Amino acid sequence: MTKTIAYVLYPGLTALDLVGPLTVTAVLDGDFETVVVARDLETLDTDAPIRLGATATFDEVTAPYAVVVPGGTAGTFAACADERLLDWLRTASATAEVTASVCTGSLILGAAGLLEGRRATTHWGFRDVLPKFGAIPVAERWVQDGGIVTAAGVSAGIDMALHLVREFAGEEVARFAQLLIEYDPLPPLGGIDWDEVDIPSFKPYMQEAMRAGLADHPELLARLTG
Amino acid sequence: MTKTIAYVLYPGLTALDLVGPLTVTAVLDGDFETVVVARDLETLDTDAPIRLGATATFDEVTAPYAVVVPGGTAGTFAACADERLLDWLRTASATAEVTASVCTGSLILGAAGLLEGRRATTHWGFRDVLPKFGAIPVAERWVQDGGIVTAAGVSAGIDMALHLVREFAGEEVARFAQLLIEYDPLPPLGGIDWDEVDIPSFKPYMQEAMRAGLADHPELLARLTG
Repeated sequence: MTKTIAYVLYPGLTALDLVGPLTVTAVLDGDFETVVVARDLETLDTDAPIRLGATATFDEVTAPYAVVVPGGTAGTFAACADERLLDWLRTASATAEVTASVCTGSLILGAAGLLEGRRATTHWGFRDVLPKFGAIPVAERWVQDGGIVTAAGVSAGIDMALHLVREFAGEEVARFAQLLIEYDPLPPLGGIDWDEVDIPSFKPYMQEAMRAGLADHPELLARLTG
Repeated sequence: MTKTIAYVLYPGLTALDLVGPLTVTAVLDGDFETVVVARDLETLDTDAPIRLGATATFDEVTAPYAVVVPGGTAGTFAACADERLLDWLRTASATAEVTASVCTGSLILGAAGLLEGRRATTHWGFRDVLPKFGAIPVAERWVQDGGIVTAAGVSAGIDMALHLVREFAGEEVARFAQLLIEYDPLPPLGGIDWDEVDIPSFKPYMQEAMRAGLADHPELLARLTG
């Protein structure tokens, strides 16, 4: 039986949150297939100047083996109040082996009620929102707690996807995926020096994303910003 | 005057080659704008199960400040024989500050005649094709030779884009872009051990991509595989 890895597409997400890990898990063949699932097949705007289109609808993908929920900014908070998306996610997660997220996608898992009591991570700018959903925030590149795997911001989805491929198909296949995308990273300015990052100074930007995404959902906005 | 950074979209490319660097340079604001340019605005299939749509047509983007050409497999070789794409690329490159590529996108630069005598790189599996276009292949994460900047395979586009942002707007902006996408890479199995990679063993796969992409262009195929 085919094991479907379903990436959730919704308006305004961060394209790299989806395309990074998808490019990794798409290497899985044989029993696995990777799909992008959305409300419909319409091409959607993202938070960067690139448009993405799904390959399947929510109705067509009913029992995926794994689900991956990408994050973003305002669009992700709007998705936190999208009952059609949350219903599909709850149903899919109930039978999936793994329910994963990238960046603020973990807040959508939280909104679906999937993070209660779980260790989880998200983009560094939104880590303090996780407890609003009952999650225990951790500052790691990705964290697995049972069947829930959450990654840190944007590019961390690539690292998490290599972990998932290792889990699903073994270390050799994970190394092959890494080789195909030549993931031998060398940031020209080195890694991030976290001692130099003043996280509270970014708070207004993060709050603005929440306000923009949840303008029509004042109760959830109050819960997340309160 | 707005400085346009134009990513070239064509059928069958590797989505991450485009979306990775685009997410980095899209952080540039003020005088800069990032666009995705294609023959038309139709949503196109890629070599993974995700569809991408451009934001502008070739006719609309006439004098970009920078051009970035993503790579891929068969679709990229087909693009090496796409005269409309090559014409636009030659014209754009003539006045652009930087003409860049990711992965096998450098072979499209080569097909456009832009790599003659230049040091350049590409995906590890296709490095031996570069001399067919007069380029001098180097095994680096990315390499700049005058106004030509070429990156290694797929994920190397992210490192190259951080370099470009540093060049265009300074180190502080590059660090900000890196922070926003939380690019503090931690591959779960470590980096690639190049001593363990048997590059010649992958040759049949690489030749198959060339044959599939250039089925209708036997002369170029013979030149690249001969």
